[in-house]
Order: sequence, then structure tokens, then C-alpha cells
Amino acid sequence: MTNSHLQSEASEANIIYTNANQLQLLGKATMEGSFFHRIDTVRYKDLPKSVKKLYAHSSGLAIAFKTNSTVIKARWTIPNKRQNTNMTPIMQKGLDLYIKKEGEWQYAGVGIPQGIHSTSTLAENMDTSEKDCILYLPLYDEITHLEIGVSSDAYLKKTKNPFKGKIIVYGSSITQGASASRPGLAYPSQLSRSSGYQFINMGLSGNGKMESSVAKMLAEIKNVDAFILDCIPNPTADEIRDRTIPFVKTIREKYPDIPVIFIQSVFREKGNVNKTVRHRVNEQNKAIEEQIEKLHKLGYKNLYLIKENHFLGTDHEGTVDGVHPNDLGFKRMVKEIQPVITNILHI
Amino acid sequence: MTNSHLQSEASEANIIYTNANQLQLLGKATMEGSFFHRIDTVRYKDLPKSVKKLYAHSSGLAIAFKTNSTVIKARWTIPNKRQNTNMTPIMQKGLDLYIKKEGEWQYAGVGIPQGIHSTSTLAENMDTSEKDCILYLPLYDEITHLEIGVSSDAYLKKTKNPFKGKIIVYGSSITQGASASRPGLAYPSQLSRSSGYQFINMGLSGNGKMESSVAKMLAEIKNVDAFILDCIPNPTADEIRDRTIPFVKTIREKYPDIPVIFIQSVFREKGNVNKTVRHRVNEQNKAIEEQIEKLHKLGYKNLYLIKENHFLGTDHEGTVDGVHPNDLGFKRMVKEIQPVITNILHI
Repeated sequence: MTNSHLQSEASEANIIYTNANQLQLLGKATMEGSFFHRIDTVRYKDLPKSVKKLYAHSSGLAIAFKTNSTVIKARWTIPNKRQNTNMTPIMQKGLDLYIKKEGEWQYAGVGIPQGIHSTSTLAENMDTSEKDCILYLPLYDEITHLEIGVSSDAYLKKTKNPFKGKIIVYGSSITQGASASRPGLAYPSQLSRSSGYQFINMGLSGNGKMESSVAKMLAEIKNVDAFILDCIPNPTADEIRDRTIPFVKTIREKYPDIPVIFIQSVFREKGNVNKTVRHRVNEQNKAIEEQIEKLHKLGYKNLYLIKENHFLGTDHEGTVDGVHPNDLGFKRMVKEIQPVITNILHI
Repeated sequence: MTNSHLQSEASEANIIYTNANQLQLLGKATMEGSFFHRIDTVRYKDLPKSVKKLYAHSSGLAIAFKTNSTVIKARWTIPNKRQNTNMTPIMQKGLDLYIKKEGEWQYAGVGIPQGIHSTSTLAENMDTSEKDCILYLPLYDEITHLEIGVSSDAYLKKTKNPFKGKIIVYGSSITQGASASRPGLAYPSQLSRSSGYQFINMGLSGNGKMESSVAKMLAEIKNVDAFILDCIPNPTADEIRDRTIPFVKTIREKYPDIPVIFIQSVFREKGNVNKTVRHRVNEQNKAIEEQIEKLHKLGYKNLYLIKENHFLGTDHEGTVDGVHPNDLGFKRMVKEIQPVITNILHI
């Protein structure tokens, strides 16, 4: 097979693009609002501005489709030019394709961002069998336009959501996905692929602070099967003491019975040398433990706390910057929390 | 402890900087040439231009020092503005600090790049004990200036190289460090920290092609204890067939006895769906195996091949882009190759 042949397979003349807004969107809490926003950022007027801005990021969202094409391409637009220092451009602004093989969702290719407008070949030289695909969207930016391209002699079909149910994961930057190396490696997406249940990424970089307006918005989401609250790294210990009980009360008004699972903050590796950071995380984790105990005493049921237990390992290698897990840290974290979560949720 | 106190500890007025070129440089094959270049890029006129350019990158280089400061800062310059899509700015242009604790080198903090000139606090709020430090330099760019800053009431001392010997690791982008999340996680540096021996990063992104001029340059390095050749992803199968025997002969002329260890190419995850890539890697790995057999038949001793054995795991999650290991992939790869290497080297 010559190089010229390879080039021709993925060359633009042979590709037909379909706007992703005609296909099945996954990982979104409600189908209202702008297609690529995680919530209807216009409807919830009371949310802090920073929260609204972050819910315009496509973290955890994905497009499902089937195709028999031997090549899969994408064209997309990310208007924001800023690049964060602790993440790859692929993770912040790129795409991540998974294909179901032998019953499992397997990595198939990434979309490489090139600036505001990008065109990238995600996978090529594939066989012509029908492929069940999930295309994960950027974790840390707002995408405004996306088209998926396949060979002009192949089909592209809309499919159903392959994941069951709706488990909301509200949290910090770590939930949002910092610092996975590519979009599909954010931990809620890892949990979805390995469990078959839909874990919805509601992580908010630096802003998972349990404000009452956020609690109301979360409680209004329909058909939720469980809430996972992995936000403890963001509020201060005082904020945790002030806000946890009202937050849970607001959720319980709409959802009296479903599991509500808090997760203690990961140990920040910075705290290995930085006494102040070490103290702050300990205080946050003590505060949430106290509040959960209080809620239990107040009679709240089906409410859990997953305690920090070296989520990121013991070799201090599991972060990119002393705060955010790298892929090694995330894999270790999933290994720790997944059995506890699936046990509570009976999935 | 108030915020204003925290700010003051690391504020520039309290910091005294030392030029890194007065301190101990680690991870460099020869001490000739520009301080932050991996080889004397001027001396070796015959090297391909791309090879010279890549050896100006500070991949695997590090500065060793001791300090009792409670804060460690750095100022540095990276003239090149380009950002690669499959790496974090921290890895490409940032710094990575390790401190020896309980007998082990542990992550302590990163230097966040901000553009051409950066100033960053790597660690703060530490105790006043003496800390043995290694500061890893950027993996994928040329650094032209570096100063290390400590509290004005603390000392900063030059130390000896904490690692023994000199093991040259010649290879591809993967050896150079793509795509660890931060500089200290390149696999030769992981091997150094865990073994106590100095693994020298001679990786060349896309250019580990075994040219005769490169073989000569490598053979001229003094006091080498072993060569590890992890370059198979870069040459074609034909180039491997043409170049392996002359490459080994050139090394054996200067080093008749020391271990020479080839490593087969990692299975490229792209090849999970891409038939062409899968075929290419298989051909490369077959070619190097044949050449090693030939060399054995020709009587070459102390020459080894580490065969690909799911270096990056079997879940297809070990890369950022289907080619380059992420931190999960590197940890798995080190787990596979380290016992074989340490066994061959009797270390």
C-alpha cells in the first residue's frame, strides 16, 4: 500500500461530513439549551458566572454513531485560544474516538486541534465492518461546531445512547478531567465505559463549591439515578461546614431516596512537602466527614462517604502538578472508587 | 497562616537566585558543548540537522542541589513559542522538582511555563530541613537560561551527581519523553530514580534512525556502561535491515564488551484499528529480531533484544494519541523493561 493511496483515503474530496447536532449526544444531564453546553446556561440565571462559563465546556459529552467507513475524520471549532499549562491541547480542545471491539469500548484515535478551526483524521485504514463509535468532545473548552466525516461510499447512522441510566458526578477540576491526556480518559467516562452506566460529568474547575443555586439546578435534573459529589477539593472547610447540609436537603426535596455519594478530596501531592496544603486538605476531609455524620444523625439515608485511601497511589507519581491526576493517577483512582460505587448502586 | 504571609514567603524580594550553570548538571552524556544541550551540537558536523536540533532539547537533563529553604523558585527562558498538541506545556517547557525523602526521590513541584520567560514557585511552605533536590528540565524544547531561587536566609549548595555510572538510552520520541505529563516522568528518568544508576536520555523525536554519523557520535561518548537502543519505532523495516549491523559494529569498535540492549517497538495503539500501522510495526519488530539473530551468528556477545510484550498494557488506554505513552503507559512499560534491564546489567 503506497503513501499516495493512504493520503487519498482520507483526502477531503472523498469525505462526506455530517453535523454532529443531528446525531446522538451522550453525557448531558438535560437535553435543553445549547447543544454542546452541559446544562442550559441561559436558563439558570442564579448560578455563579464562573459556573455557567464552565458548564459551556463540553466535558464528558460525546457523540454516538455507527459507520462502516474505513476512515473517520472531524472538523470542529473552538473559539477560545488560551492553552492551559497542565493539560495537552488534545485533551483541552481535541476529540477522542472509541470503537466497540470484542464487547469493549476501545481507543481508536484522537482529533488533533490546530487552532480555532481544526480538521483531523481520527482513524484510517480500517476494515469495512460496521463500527459502533463514541466521539468524546474537548474537556476544557467550549466547542461551537462539530462535523463528523466518513468515506463518501460509506454510511453514518444515528444510534441510541449505549449507556443506561443517569448518574450525576458533580465535582472539581478533577471531575472535569484535569489532567487526563485525552478527553475519553476523564474518570466519569472511564466509569461509563467499564460499567455500561452513564456517568454525567458535572465537574467545575475550581468551582465545585456547593452553592445553593447549584444545588437547586442539580436537583431539577430529571430521572437521576444517583448523585456522586466529588467537590470537596474546592470549598474551604468552613464552606463545607456551612453548605453540605443545605446542599443535601435541596437534593433530598426532589430525590428522597436515591443514593448520594460524597467522595473525600484526593490527597494533594503538593502536601507531601507543603505543610499549608497538607493542613488544608486534611481540614476539608475532616469537615465533610463531620457533616455526613450529622446528616446520618438527622436521619438521612442512602447517603455515603468514600474516604480518601491513597486514591492516587503511594509513589507520588500520580499527578501532573501536585494537584491534578495524570492518567496513572486516574486509573488508580478508578480502581479505588469504582468497586465502592458499583456496590452502592448495585450495578 | 494568612494568605498575605504565604505570598510574602515566595515574593521576589525574599528570593536569591543562582544561575544553574554553576550547579551540578545530571543526565548529560558528555560535558562538552552548550550547557543545556544533550551533546556538543557544534562538534558533530555530520549529524543530520534534525538530530542536532533535537539534541539541543534538554530532555532528561536535571540540576542537582541542596537547600534548607522553605521555598524553591525558578526563572527560565525557552525562546521557542510552538506548543505540541500531544504534550502538556509543563512537560514541553516546564520544570519538575524532586526531593529525596525517606531514601526515595519524590515529586515536590513543577515550574509552570508562562511564555518565553517564566518565573514560578515550585514548592513553598516547606520545613527548614536540608533537602536533596533534582530539578528536571523541559523534555521537548531548548532552554537557554535557568536560575534557581531560594529564601535569602537559606543556603543553596552544589552537590555531586547522585546517580552512578552512565547508561545511554538512544531512541525515539518515546525515549525523549512523549508524552509524560511532566519532565521527571520520562522513562529514562524513572529508571534512574528507581535504580540509582544514571540513564541518559538520548531520545530523538521521530529521528532515532540509526544513521552511521549517530552511531559514531554515540560510540565516542566516554565511560559508557551500557547502551539501550529503543529506536525501532523510527526507521523503516528496510532501514533496520540496512543499519543495525553497521550500527552495532561501530559501537563494538569502541566498546567491545559492554551490554548493548535493543528494545522492540511498543505496539502502536493506532494499529488496533489501522491495518497499515499494525503491519508497519510488525515489520519493524520482525526486522530487528532478524538482525539481532544475525549479529549473534556473527559472534557478537552481550547483545540483547527485549521483545514487545504488551509494554503499554492490554486495555488500549496507555497512550495520548495512539503512538505516545501517557503516564499510565510509561509506568506499565517501566514495569516490563526494568527487571530485564537490571538483570542484564547486574544492577
